Amino acid sequence: MSERLVIIGGDAAGMTAASRARRRRDPDDLEIVAFERGPYTSYSACGIPYLVGDLVSDVDRLVARSPEEHRRNGIDVRTGHEVVAIDLNRRQVRVHDLGAAAERDEPFDQLVVATGAVPSRPDLPGIDADGIFGVQTLADGVTVRRAVDQGAPSRAVVVGGGYIGLEMAEALVRRGLEVALVDRTAQPMAAVLDDDIGALVGDALRAVGVTLYMGESVDGFDTEAGAVRAVRTAQHTLPADLVVLGLGVRPNSGLAESAGIAVGDTGGVVTDARMETSVGGVWAAGDCVESIDRVTGRPVVVALGTHANKQGRVVGINVTGGDARFPGVVGTAASKICAYEVARTGLTERQASEARIDVVAATIESTTRAGYYPGAAPITVKVVAERPGGRIVGAQIVGEEGAAKRIDVLATAIWNRMPVDEVADLDLSYAPPFSPVWDPVLVAARRAADQL
Amino acid sequence: MSERLVIIGGDAAGMTAASRARRRRDPDDLEIVAFERGPYTSYSACGIPYLVGDLVSDVDRLVARSPEEHRRNGIDVRTGHEVVAIDLNRRQVRVHDLGAAAERDEPFDQLVVATGAVPSRPDLPGIDADGIFGVQTLADGVTVRRAVDQGAPSRAVVVGGGYIGLEMAEALVRRGLEVALVDRTAQPMAAVLDDDIGALVGDALRAVGVTLYMGESVDGFDTEAGAVRAVRTAQHTLPADLVVLGLGVRPNSGLAESAGIAVGDTGGVVTDARMETSVGGVWAAGDCVESIDRVTGRPVVVALGTHANKQGRVVGINVTGGDARFPGVVGTAASKICAYEVARTGLTERQASEARIDVVAATIESTTRAGYYPGAAPITVKVVAERPGGRIVGAQIVGEEGAAKRIDVLATAIWNRMPVDEVADLDLSYAPPFSPVWDPVLVAARRAADQL
Repeated sequence: MSERLVIIGGDAAGMTAASRARRRRDPDDLEIVAFERGPYTSYSACGIPYLVGDLVSDVDRLVARSPEEHRRNGIDVRTGHEVVAIDLNRRQVRVHDLGAAAERDEPFDQLVVATGAVPSRPDLPGIDADGIFGVQTLADGVTVRRAVDQGAPSRAVVVGGGYIGLEMAEALVRRGLEVALVDRTAQPMAAVLDDDIGALVGDALRAVGVTLYMGESVDGFDTEAGAVRAVRTAQHTLPADLVVLGLGVRPNSGLAESAGIAVGDTGGVVTDARMETSVGGVWAAGDCVESIDRVTGRPVVVALGTHANKQGRVVGINVTGGDARFPGVVGTAASKICAYEVARTGLTERQASEARIDVVAATIESTTRAGYYPGAAPITVKVVAERPGGRIVGAQIVGEEGAAKRIDVLATAIWNRMPVDEVADLDLSYAPPFSPVWDPVLVAARRAADQL
Repeated sequence: MSERLVIIGGDAAGMTAASRARRRRDPDDLEIVAFERGPYTSYSACGIPYLVGDLVSDVDRLVARSPEEHRRNGIDVRTGHEVVAIDLNRRQVRVHDLGAAAERDEPFDQLVVATGAVPSRPDLPGIDADGIFGVQTLADGVTVRRAVDQGAPSRAVVVGGGYIGLEMAEALVRRGLEVALVDRTAQPMAAVLDDDIGALVGDALRAVGVTLYMGESVDGFDTEAGAVRAVRTAQHTLPADLVVLGLGVRPNSGLAESAGIAVGDTGGVVTDARMETSVGGVWAAGDCVESIDRVTGRPVVVALGTHANKQGRVVGINVTGGDARFPGVVGTAASKICAYEVARTGLTERQASEARIDVVAATIESTTRAGYYPGAAPITVKVVAERPGGRIVGAQIVGEEGAAKRIDVLATAIWNRMPVDEVADLDLSYAPPFSPVWDPVLVAARRAADQL
């Protein structure tokens, strides 16, 4: 009799696991069933701002593989099906068929929990008004795009200054809206950047026309006939035809926790390096799990498609008798706001302090190309290094074209626990269209080494 | 009495050494004299193609620091002065003042040999005709530019398909010339790329309008009234109003060798990691030295401004009582031909074979951005890994905007002797404007790991 693998969640982590497992085992040998609450599978949530901003016009372009394509590959994908309970004793899940409004039990031999993340949605007065949107799922993205296309809004307020908030602010500016951004932190991206670098991101946002209201918390929303009309803070009432909530996400681990699967203090499902949970034969991957931060050795939650894909691959190999490991993260991420690029990896000074790691930091300004080469643009690089040993533990970059991807060198250096003076010696590519003769990354590392 | 430091060569390596030493020691304490044969100091030779191609209009923009600026900083720069002999017993150099046509001896306590490289100039019939140019020095670059500006040439032949040949071909295409490129190798950049990747560079050259004559050696030049009229190969006679020689360079180590300073089989001056030559108190840096290839452990010669600067810094610190080391190279380099970018690091398959390292290679095609993001462009990444251990030993990249600088991640991985399966796990930045969810670098590393 064939084995049955059940996947909860049809996005990057779940479907990568399913696809990998399918490639390694025949349908006669392994039945694979994936339950997805929404209508889409394997889509790029990171692409939602570009759909809204009309850099991408067709929603299907954000779908890497549709339910039909997965079915043709021998994966029994059931969209519109929400798993509402996991019964570990009976090895079955309870599934709610949203279309038929019916529930039934589905057995499994092995289970993959890939339930993703849930967006923060604080219980504020008026938050359920029309015109207030989350942007978590592709369906959300389609809804926001339709609101912009058809509702002809002229003023938007973005609540939350993280990646998604910034990218949505850019998208709405592109669509011709007047855009304000509100965050209670002092500078944008405060969770992942130090304030000195965040201030540069703030400048970039202002340069593209976004009005910032930093250090202000949202108290509620004014509504009229059920539709949002303004966002209220202690200091301001900001008129709004459209509000986007970008207040961050937390792991969607409730289903697993209710079943008795271990969930960490981070809120993420706990797994070992093979992505197996505290329960044998039950695996987890993607935004719902916690990962090991290779710098601190502590668990962290990082909701990012690249990890979801890697973890899904690991699960797909391991559920079919292979042996793959997910080695952890260093917290690398990048974002673009019109011409401005921002990237980060490892620990900020603030995060290092929280982790009780004594650090020095150096920030330098340079150009993305040789100064004389056309298109040479400003770049600021900050490097954070452990004291006294000099190990590089973090970096942040803000600049124009060609700036962000330089973070990968520093991420690779952090991964390898390199001392900053050795980072400064790296043999990086040099040609005038790509770099000054001293790459800005090397200059920043040298400056940090000099400060030790 | 103050010490006297003499520098031979006023470009990147020599003047970086001089400047660094100047910052560390007062003029009362250390006199610094630099002799430079030409009129310029501290210039970007790498920028010459952009001067010729009119991407940079003013020659002064390629000069990081002029002789006057160096003098204001307390360095006694003497341009138009060629050192013709080094007397190690008397600790003096023989200097030819080109302007006064006079020679004199100049004493030193410590000496820095930074004599750069000499271009290959084969003894072919007609090679001394007007209209045949080398592009080694900034003065050469000015001469070629003037020939294009004033001579109104319509047909150019570039001899040599290495970096400088390709960049000059682009420059001349930009200036509206009909450009042919001749090389005896099968594909462009054969010294640094495998033929499969070199073929893509060939395609890129043809795409911008360069006609390639590969596998053809130049037999000589047809001339008329002392001026070049054509380039002759066994197969073709290629009409030419202007010829650029880009046949590579070799270390300009003859002066050092004549003095009894050790020169290696590579032709480069031998130094230790502190950049001291076989003679105490005599240092060398830049294109005239050999460096340790960190992959093979063998000496290599790499003429590149980034190494010259790093080595100059090391010398400047060590001549003033400090202790700095140049840790060697992995052979990273990049170039741009109009919209096309090419980069390489470590060993090619061919070089690995020559070094008797058993390797596997994997080549993948992907895009520079998420496929749906505007401007997503093709990128090809090749990764070379040692068998059976899997250590990454080399990589090559060809693609459009955003392709080349990705080589730095692979250079950093090679530096750290990472196995390719670990490279494939690296936490690189992902956002749709910068990368597909699996960065092409990761995909190539994974493919190589799968082949082991």
